[in-house]
Amino acid sequence: MNIIEGGVTAAKGFKASSCAAGIKYEGRPDMAMVWSEEPCVSAGVYTSNLVKAACVLWDKKLTSGSSKISAVVVNAGIANACTGEQGLAFCEETAKAVGEAMNVSEENVLVASTGVIGKQLPIEKIVNGAGVLCATLEGGISAGTAASKAIMTTDTVNKEVAVSVEIGGHTVTVGGMCKGSGMIHPNMCTMLGFITTDCAIEKNLLRKALSELVTDTFNMVSVDGDTSTNDTLVVLANALAGNPVIDKENEDYETFKKALFFVMETLAKKIAADGEGATALLTVKVVNAKTKAQAKTLAKSVICSNLTKAAVYGHDANWGRILCAFGYSGEVFDPDKVTLSFIGGGEEVILFENGTGTDFSEEKATHILSNKEVTVLADFHMGTESATAWGCDLTHEYVSINADYRS
Amino acid sequence: MNIIEGGVTAAKGFKASSCAAGIKYEGRPDMAMVWSEEPCVSAGVYTSNLVKAACVLWDKKLTSGSSKISAVVVNAGIANACTGEQGLAFCEETAKAVGEAMNVSEENVLVASTGVIGKQLPIEKIVNGAGVLCATLEGGISAGTAASKAIMTTDTVNKEVAVSVEIGGHTVTVGGMCKGSGMIHPNMCTMLGFITTDCAIEKNLLRKALSELVTDTFNMVSVDGDTSTNDTLVVLANALAGNPVIDKENEDYETFKKALFFVMETLAKKIAADGEGATALLTVKVVNAKTKAQAKTLAKSVICSNLTKAAVYGHDANWGRILCAFGYSGEVFDPDKVTLSFIGGGEEVILFENGTGTDFSEEKATHILSNKEVTVLADFHMGTESATAWGCDLTHEYVSINADYRS
Repeated sequence: MNIIEGGVTAAKGFKASSCAAGIKYEGRPDMAMVWSEEPCVSAGVYTSNLVKAACVLWDKKLTSGSSKISAVVVNAGIANACTGEQGLAFCEETAKAVGEAMNVSEENVLVASTGVIGKQLPIEKIVNGAGVLCATLEGGISAGTAASKAIMTTDTVNKEVAVSVEIGGHTVTVGGMCKGSGMIHPNMCTMLGFITTDCAIEKNLLRKALSELVTDTFNMVSVDGDTSTNDTLVVLANALAGNPVIDKENEDYETFKKALFFVMETLAKKIAADGEGATALLTVKVVNAKTKAQAKTLAKSVICSNLTKAAVYGHDANWGRILCAFGYSGEVFDPDKVTLSFIGGGEEVILFENGTGTDFSEEKATHILSNKEVTVLADFHMGTESATAWGCDLTHEYVSINADYRS
Repeated sequence: MNIIEGGVTAAKGFKASSCAAGIKYEGRPDMAMVWSEEPCVSAGVYTSNLVKAACVLWDKKLTSGSSKISAVVVNAGIANACTGEQGLAFCEETAKAVGEAMNVSEENVLVASTGVIGKQLPIEKIVNGAGVLCATLEGGISAGTAASKAIMTTDTVNKEVAVSVEIGGHTVTVGGMCKGSGMIHPNMCTMLGFITTDCAIEKNLLRKALSELVTDTFNMVSVDGDTSTNDTLVVLANALAGNPVIDKENEDYETFKKALFFVMETLAKKIAADGEGATALLTVKVVNAKTKAQAKTLAKSVICSNLTKAAVYGHDANWGRILCAFGYSGEVFDPDKVTLSFIGGGEEVILFENGTGTDFSEEKATHILSNKEVTVLADFHMGTESATAWGCDLTHEYVSINADYRS
């Protein structure tokens, strides 16, 4: 597997565009579009929040049906959630505008929105923007990068990644972009993620791969414990790589899955590292748990602990908060058997073992916690299963951003 | 029912003391003791965290057994959690020191600790402090108030309340104190709470009343979603009021329960209002839910939402975050039927009804959110059950406090 440049336009046959439609932000692009020359089989996973944005309902219907997908149109600034019938009608109107310009049906067009909940989209601006997007589609890395920038809200960096693998003698590329910084606690998948591939693969296997991999990647990220109304992750596959169609769970399927996993894991980590106000990517690795589910619950409990997150921000090796978070996770374990350490910048310090705190060097621990990437490693000595979760520290800046988001 | 002055020493026969044992803080009392002239029947509820502090294990054993309780000794600064066998031995040593000085068995002495997890108690200082506490016990309101101050950690105000009711022609008093500000998400009960009463009541009924009432009071509070290792709530009843012993669920039992409920609810709200860094008490009232359990889950989901809490801090009427938090609670409801409003300072503003946001006055909403007590009222129009949860806003100060707690 090779890591290559680019994102959604890395795979064959995908183009992208972006424009400033003036939805919320001044002087920056806030709409983006991804287009595939050939219609794509698709798979999508969406928020488990009962309150689902109108665009989630629209996309869910399309990706679970038999329509092939040619385009995705995204806007930043307004989420089109809690917007009733009107919100749904606006999804259709947007898809129709793209469909007419590109000569496909509205049922081939996905729409996605991110931003403030409860406001109606300025539909005239959206339709005008869609027109511009359709007229300015371009292939090549930079068009994809521009699209990944246009969908940002409180994100501080754009997020994209691409890899290539060999399948049946053909180079297959998988690339993606995503956005997300606050209201991030994906449950089915994250804020907005779009992955494109030129792999030839049947829809049912694409769906299977996506659903399996999302539980170990996007669903293991939390910035603030708030599961959004808009979480959407879509994969589009246009078959232009020319590989023999993957129609069973053979070696080719496994190769494709590895590439897809890498793209999903990388994007998920990028979201955690760019959590609102974050100064550090916090990784929690639970090893030697009894079951995979237990390992996941334990790891996520720490990632969601405000107190742990604030301690990481303060470079304070307050490991009691981590053990406390394991303790209230609902999982059963023997605290006396847990070994707990911090890892960062190539150093490791053991904080707790045999039921009590070690006599560790506070100076070394603080030094480790000052890295931009900090790992909590917890060995439960109960079995052989492990899991990793990703989050970030809780900072003054997080509070500032969210105390004054709308105004 | 009359609200009266005082706290743990309001009921007949209870004395208290406090002293500066030098455990963590300089120049302020950090140990407290409550003593009853007559041995008490007791009931206790404790943290559901699997990682339980040594003192929780000690108290749980005593209050679930048949020993009567004469004393409670509390220290602030170190939590005696994650301290292994040594920690348990220190509980016994402390109880023994008090027992010897007061001429009771160590099995009549509860101990409680609050503070940093993972450090061993400075047992010499604790035992010396216990000696001072035993020698300086006093009746009267001010001794109880001093005790409620000595158990504070990041609390900014001490917390106590007392009421009296008439039972069988006798005045029965119920009073209590508690502490708690961070790591507050009680599940069985809160950080540390001590309630004393001179009511004559059988142990099994005291336990029943406590367990029932804790689910509607302390367990409906959250400051930060982190369930502590030390949560302890104990009620001591010494029978000195002279009322006919309450030995069945009759009218007297109901009267006592009302008094106990008031004390517990008041203490619970005081903890929420004094959440670390808080500038406002946030109350979430869910009405007309299908079941009581559903109403509770919905209310708690909002109380725990970082995004909602940060919006309240910023006086930003970002109601979409509230609907989002209801949506990810796991409960099933029809978002289109929810009516949502903010109440504060005698004003109310409806934010959401019939599936979309109302055209509310931002100015009025901001004005309401500027109060020190803000209520979110959500009518689900599904049934007749309701629930209330209490929390606070998420502030810069919360992050400051917790980024630098130990040092």
